[in-house]
Amino acid sequence: MRTVDLITKKRDGGELTETEINELIRGYTEGSIPDYQMSAMAMAIFFRGMTPQERADLTMAMVHSGETIDLSEISGIKVDKHSTGGVGDTTTLVLAPLVASIGVPVAKMSGRGLGHTGGTIDKLESIPGFHVEIDNRTFIELVNRNGVAVIGQSDNLTPADKKLYGLRDVTGTVNSIPLIASSIMSKKIASGADAIVLDVKTGDGAFMKEMSESEELAACMVDIGNRVGRRTIAVLSDMSQPLGNAIGNALEVQEAIDTLRGIGPEDLTELCLTLGSHMAVLSGVASNEQEARELLAKSISNGQALEKFKTFISEQGGDASVVDRPELLPQAKFKIEVPSKEAGFIAKIAAENIGLAAMLLGAGRATKESKIDLAVGIVLHKKIGDRVEAGESLATIHANNESVEQVVAKIFESVQVQASPVTPPPLLVGEVK
Amino acid sequence: MRTVDLITKKRDGGELTETEINELIRGYTEGSIPDYQMSAMAMAIFFRGMTPQERADLTMAMVHSGETIDLSEISGIKVDKHSTGGVGDTTTLVLAPLVASIGVPVAKMSGRGLGHTGGTIDKLESIPGFHVEIDNRTFIELVNRNGVAVIGQSDNLTPADKKLYGLRDVTGTVNSIPLIASSIMSKKIASGADAIVLDVKTGDGAFMKEMSESEELAACMVDIGNRVGRRTIAVLSDMSQPLGNAIGNALEVQEAIDTLRGIGPEDLTELCLTLGSHMAVLSGVASNEQEARELLAKSISNGQALEKFKTFISEQGGDASVVDRPELLPQAKFKIEVPSKEAGFIAKIAAENIGLAAMLLGAGRATKESKIDLAVGIVLHKKIGDRVEAGESLATIHANNESVEQVVAKIFESVQVQASPVTPPPLLVGEVK
Repeated sequence: MRTVDLITKKRDGGELTETEINELIRGYTEGSIPDYQMSAMAMAIFFRGMTPQERADLTMAMVHSGETIDLSEISGIKVDKHSTGGVGDTTTLVLAPLVASIGVPVAKMSGRGLGHTGGTIDKLESIPGFHVEIDNRTFIELVNRNGVAVIGQSDNLTPADKKLYGLRDVTGTVNSIPLIASSIMSKKIASGADAIVLDVKTGDGAFMKEMSESEELAACMVDIGNRVGRRTIAVLSDMSQPLGNAIGNALEVQEAIDTLRGIGPEDLTELCLTLGSHMAVLSGVASNEQEARELLAKSISNGQALEKFKTFISEQGGDASVVDRPELLPQAKFKIEVPSKEAGFIAKIAAENIGLAAMLLGAGRATKESKIDLAVGIVLHKKIGDRVEAGESLATIHANNESVEQVVAKIFESVQVQASPVTPPPLLVGEVK
Repeated sequence: MRTVDLITKKRDGGELTETEINELIRGYTEGSIPDYQMSAMAMAIFFRGMTPQERADLTMAMVHSGETIDLSEISGIKVDKHSTGGVGDTTTLVLAPLVASIGVPVAKMSGRGLGHTGGTIDKLESIPGFHVEIDNRTFIELVNRNGVAVIGQSDNLTPADKKLYGLRDVTGTVNSIPLIASSIMSKKIASGADAIVLDVKTGDGAFMKEMSESEELAACMVDIGNRVGRRTIAVLSDMSQPLGNAIGNALEVQEAIDTLRGIGPEDLTELCLTLGSHMAVLSGVASNEQEARELLAKSISNGQALEKFKTFISEQGGDASVVDRPELLPQAKFKIEVPSKEAGFIAKIAAENIGLAAMLLGAGRATKESKIDLAVGIVLHKKIGDRVEAGESLATIHANNESVEQVVAKIFESVQVQASPVTPPPLLVGEVK
């Protein structure tokens, strides 16, 4: 089997067999298939797509290219959650303790990543003492004892995916739905998930800006999961404006605490309840979504969710007193308000641009080497549809540097105010099972 | 300008500017743009095609990637001919002395190449003493004195094309018409051609087996030539059966001599007159094709064409007496007839398969290292439409090894005889100016 024949087969619209895909990924991981053949293949896939079976085969070939995590010593069905990423997405910080508090085991591998803010680990590290450098044994014990633990992502998971992603990034082949879907799913499966809940974002601040593309990606991932024996559900959620109000690391921890306490932003709370109830049903803790939702809501109202958060934090070395004393979280030196120039209704809050404004403050990483400032960020005071008066603050900038002209300009650029009332966009825009 | 942005632009159907194409080819030739980006670009071009301007820009960027031959010291308009390749294509051997004999300067760079038989140089080298190892000065002097000379292709022409072709060969991106067209045209232009006559073959034995593809390739090359100031004409000719009767190196030299003497195969003669008259018109030696054709026919009938061939051969060290004493050409040890099993009319002579039969005998190179046997080959005695009796020879195999069962089998496999009469396919199937 010559690689060029596989490329030509795909180029001409043929279907690669499982053996062909396995050989391709094995050869590429080992280095016997060079980058220049893989990039031509990726471009052929960009144009020709992949059949459902090819996508599933590619996913499993990438899973088997490296280490896979064995979570069998954790009792119960391990349900992982994945978000395709957006601006101000604090759901993991809320969901992990929330679903754990009703009995869903959460054994989470998480990363740092690039983006407008840090990854889940960066955010959690804004809690003094908290760390994810725990060994596998401790990780499993913590989940069995408390129902929740977070560990840093192993470097040995899905090396084929890492190598392929790096190549796609420089060859114009990132935007291929089957390649995106198999990349995401392979990492989740290699991390030991029995079942997967996906939060696929759509709109300006999402990777997929068009609803039709987001739906296609969601359907593609759900199909892969179900084909390879991992029950998978996808929720499509709006990312035309940032989720919640906070964009920043410590600021999002604060917002997560508020949400676990029952006083968080409405959209973030709603999304967590929706994703959480799917997780609860998949893990078998609840028999249907309605029941799951009631369990979750009750856990928030009776304080169990927040209690679980405290246990989770302190068991991983963190100072759980931040929950009641938010001033223990990193604080920015300057808090600058951004008053609206006009009165009216908020018509638009361009999510991506707000994310870039947070990056300008230092909240995120542009390259792997960038250092994050955990204290800085933006807290929005308005969402689309809200009434605003002239001079009323649209947002508070948390900065460690007084010159925030660029950030202010970006916020003004992002927020549109109009005279006539605006209907807020729905948060939940679809679901794929 | 990041290469990935150029790839994405092409992938999404955009048009690359001249500057972008120049940077791409310069970077690729120098090595600052890696193979894996170029192969992704080539695959994007495979799917998206190139605009006429892009093709012209790509051609000239490849021309400028290396040495270009300056033929300005040769007086007159230098017209080059290029064939896209087929089986038994002896046209260059006939055309070079033929058009030179009426005053068209022929300064030909030629190669050895891979294929069913050798390249033009291999064929000429079957004439004892003939060689192409002459320096540029001698080459130019010979053309100025005699009107014709052949030199081996410089290794320094169009290095970008060489590198890109090697990459395309292993990444499934050979079959892209704009890439094929710019590859061919860049080599002709770098070799110093002022004007170009293309012989685009179509049918079983051609690279392009479909008429529509051959037409597209022809139109694409003519457009490139005209856009970059080299008047270009393409003739589309049939390659469903081999051209002429001989397939083999010395055998084709013999056939070329016959043709120059006016007793060659009808199809080869006709094609040489057609291509030759276009060359004569482009070079200004004749004012129209009819006039050119008459000049060429006269040069054959009065012996001037054959005389020019003798001069050409002896000036490059060859023994011109082969013209009158064909036994001086390399002779195969065995001549084996292939008698028809049935009577009827020839319906098909699968050109590619006949070419493979000649390769089995040793007439061509499978790899660069293969050694060619100049004496061996096949001489067909029938063409499509001819009547054949049972037991009458279809072809003579010229072999240096008595076991030719496989070759005989391939010939039987290739030739179809049917009871009812067959109309021969037209030789000339189109023209693009």
